[in-house]
Amino acid sequence: MSVHTISRTQVHQYWDNRPIISVKSGDTISFDCLDASGGVITPTVTKADLALLSLSGFNKVNGPVHVEGAAPGDTLQVDVIDIETADWGWTAILSGFGLLADEFPEQEIKVWKLNKSGEEEKGYGYAWFDEGKGIKIPLKPFSGEMGVAPEEKGQYSTIPPYATGGNIDLKHLTAGSTVYLPVKVDGGLFSIGDGHAAQGDGEVCGTAIETPTKVTVRLTVLKNKPYVQTPHYHISKVADESGEFYGTTGVAPDIREATRDAVRNMIKYLEAEHGLTRTEAYMLCSVAGDLRMHEVVDMPNYLIGMMIPKPIFGHRSS
Amino acid sequence: MSVHTISRTQVHQYWDNRPIISVKSGDTISFDCLDASGGVITPTVTKADLALLSLSGFNKVNGPVHVEGAAPGDTLQVDVIDIETADWGWTAILSGFGLLADEFPEQEIKVWKLNKSGEEEKGYGYAWFDEGKGIKIPLKPFSGEMGVAPEEKGQYSTIPPYATGGNIDLKHLTAGSTVYLPVKVDGGLFSIGDGHAAQGDGEVCGTAIETPTKVTVRLTVLKNKPYVQTPHYHISKVADESGEFYGTTGVAPDIREATRDAVRNMIKYLEAEHGLTRTEAYMLCSVAGDLRMHEVVDMPNYLIGMMIPKPIFGHRSS
Repeated sequence: MSVHTISRTQVHQYWDNRPIISVKSGDTISFDCLDASGGVITPTVTKADLALLSLSGFNKVNGPVHVEGAAPGDTLQVDVIDIETADWGWTAILSGFGLLADEFPEQEIKVWKLNKSGEEEKGYGYAWFDEGKGIKIPLKPFSGEMGVAPEEKGQYSTIPPYATGGNIDLKHLTAGSTVYLPVKVDGGLFSIGDGHAAQGDGEVCGTAIETPTKVTVRLTVLKNKPYVQTPHYHISKVADESGEFYGTTGVAPDIREATRDAVRNMIKYLEAEHGLTRTEAYMLCSVAGDLRMHEVVDMPNYLIGMMIPKPIFGHRSS
Repeated sequence: MSVHTISRTQVHQYWDNRPIISVKSGDTISFDCLDASGGVITPTVTKADLALLSLSGFNKVNGPVHVEGAAPGDTLQVDVIDIETADWGWTAILSGFGLLADEFPEQEIKVWKLNKSGEEEKGYGYAWFDEGKGIKIPLKPFSGEMGVAPEEKGQYSTIPPYATGGNIDLKHLTAGSTVYLPVKVDGGLFSIGDGHAAQGDGEVCGTAIETPTKVTVRLTVLKNKPYVQTPHYHISKVADESGEFYGTTGVAPDIREATRDAVRNMIKYLEAEHGLTRTEAYMLCSVAGDLRMHEVVDMPNYLIGMMIPKPIFGHRSS
């Protein structure tokens, strides 16, 4: 089995590209990935810069990788072996993007310093959300984009998730996890990118802690899992902060509106009890709050929960 | 502070009833609750019996309890102090009920033996889902119904969840948890019921492990949380089995359809890899699988996950 390397310039914007490399089943590939902005956003970015940004170049992915022997009907097993972030990241509220886009028309950006080590921290380190308020986010990095090419030819944007994966933003896919993708074309054509240093289930404001990453995966072709028709995954440990949470709920006949209401209610809680601005609260929900569907069967109302981990609060500044 | 007792006959079917007792803020109340069927389903129930059942008497709740000093605009803090199940429970697929109701027209029922102790088990014990297949569910009991009366007069069924609580089926509200409810009428008028021995986030087949319960709560009136307009909660430990999970996803432009597809895909996985029938798999998803909203911002598709804890599999029969 070989180890291959994909550089930060070997990227594409749509899922219909030709492969840049061919590997054997079982091979390991290391990718040097820029952040979701493709390097356009830098640590010195300001809110004024956002007005000049075009999202059209966002979410390029590294690849595609052709895996020998992968044929339509097979499953591509992707083992996430290692992932390392840069020492900085960003979170933004971008116009027209996010679960509450209509209620947050103004763009905002936050730049984070990622403290990748620290003896008192387990795992990947941490980032201060607000040192003065004692709010600290543990880093649990993963690649927001992992996917293979769709069956149909055409220009499939890398922004949405698909049954073949892509921008799935599945926060539990940290190192040690496995994702299974349904192969639809010869060789699978696997790509990866969109590094996140931390994110809650839902990514509600539209962005996580976005960061450049170096990520290593092993790609293996499986012939015996025809039932995998959307991304499946195995995680040895959920990427939640701890067992202690404060939760808010949304209750409505429409799941999406119940979800939006759960987030709105968490924003109000964070404003009232933790002194955050509305914008700060929305960003905190996106990088640390988890959306869970508590009850989806007692009509006419659904009950959706937004859970924020309590251990992110109450830290002393260093 | 006093301790009060509510018997299993002190129940009501709608949220507009008059109080049966008045307590002081800070008082503790113990409720003897029948199961969601109100005692109609017994341990000897058969599938044939289901055809004769009427759901119209289901989900009665014990109460209501008037709390002195609770006024509209206040918050009722409900601390779950203790909860004990019976030694049996049931899970059913009922016509027209459940997230995949259209795909599961045939009614089914399963009766469980609840092993409430066991030295090798931490917590509340366990129940075999299938001893031959080595599938065992840890018990994490909670009350599916906790709520207060709505503002408007009228006959509000106890089946749906509301902004004032009710059938919220929030599996994390085990002993040691707190739920906060918005008071809409004088005295709040709190009721509780619908004991569950175990449930996944979502309760997708429409029922959990339904069981009679004895539950004790403390009711406290709060004046300083006007932002609580739907149920909020504090949980010291999530009621998930462990950090290891297998997950399936649904990807679709409609959240409900993405959710249904995540469940369908988990059912197929459980059939293929664990030898379950389709009906068994659907029930297992309901009592042990968790619905999470992994990504809800990259249009046009949502990505919903159904996560099944791996530690429920591979047990040796006793």
